[in-house]
Amino acid sequence: MLEMATLLAQATVDSGFGTLGVGIGMGLAIVGAGLGIGRIGGSAVEAISRQPEASGTIATQMLISAALIEGATVIALILLLIR
Amino acid sequence: MLEMATLLAQATVDSGFGTLGVGIGMGLAIVGAGLGIGRIGGSAVEAISRQPEASGTIATQMLISAALIEGATVIALILLLIR
Amino acid sequence: MLEMATLLAQATVDSGFGTLGVGIGMGLAIVGAGLGIGRIGGSAVEAISRQPEASGTIATQMLISAALIEGATVIALILLLIR
Repeated sequence: MLEMATLLAQATVDSGFGTLGVGIGMGLAIVGAGLGIGRIGGSAVEAISRQPEASGTIATQMLISAALIEGATVIALILLLIR
Repeated sequence: MLEMATLLAQATVDSGFGTLGVGIGMGLAIVGAGLGIGRIGGSAVEAISRQPEASGTIATQMLISAALIEGATVIALILLLIR
Repeated sequence: MLEMATLLAQATVDSGFGTLGVGIGMGLAIVGAGLGIGRIGGSAVEAISRQPEASGTIATQMLISAALIEGATVIALILLLIR
């Protein structure tokens, strides 16, 4: 009976560390997405101010590269959730 | 009775580690969103001061890229809450 | 009676870890919001000093992007509180 209790207790402690890892992982994922999309968006608006007539092309390329980061971030969030 | 007490006690310790992870995750998510949207918004107002006549295009692109970060951040916050 | 005392004592330790996480999370959230809104506000006043006639447009865009960060931050603080 004593062994059974000890076993269950340690299994629950482990689950807490798992959620700690999920939280750190999701947080770091958003830090990466923020740094990346922030760099792209910031440079895009500066580029438009330098060449306003190229704003269509700049906006398209900005969206493509930002969507790449966004896609990887959402995949990471979902994988962390089902973990 | 002794075994039961030990089991329950350590099970509660687990829940604490999980909330620690959720807190760190939510905090890091806002750090990422702040860095990203801050970079975009800061560059946008600087770009408008350089080309005030392009302010409409710049504001639109700023909102699109900032919304990408905002979306991923809110998704992460919700996933962390239901975790 | 001794076992019961042990149970309650360790349950309090657990709740401490959770509050630790909430505290770290709320602190990081404000760090992120401060960095982000600080960057936007700082750039906005510099942009207005360069193009005072565009101050209306700049102020509007500053408010929009700063409100995006503020919104995500308040959501995170509330979610951390009810966690």
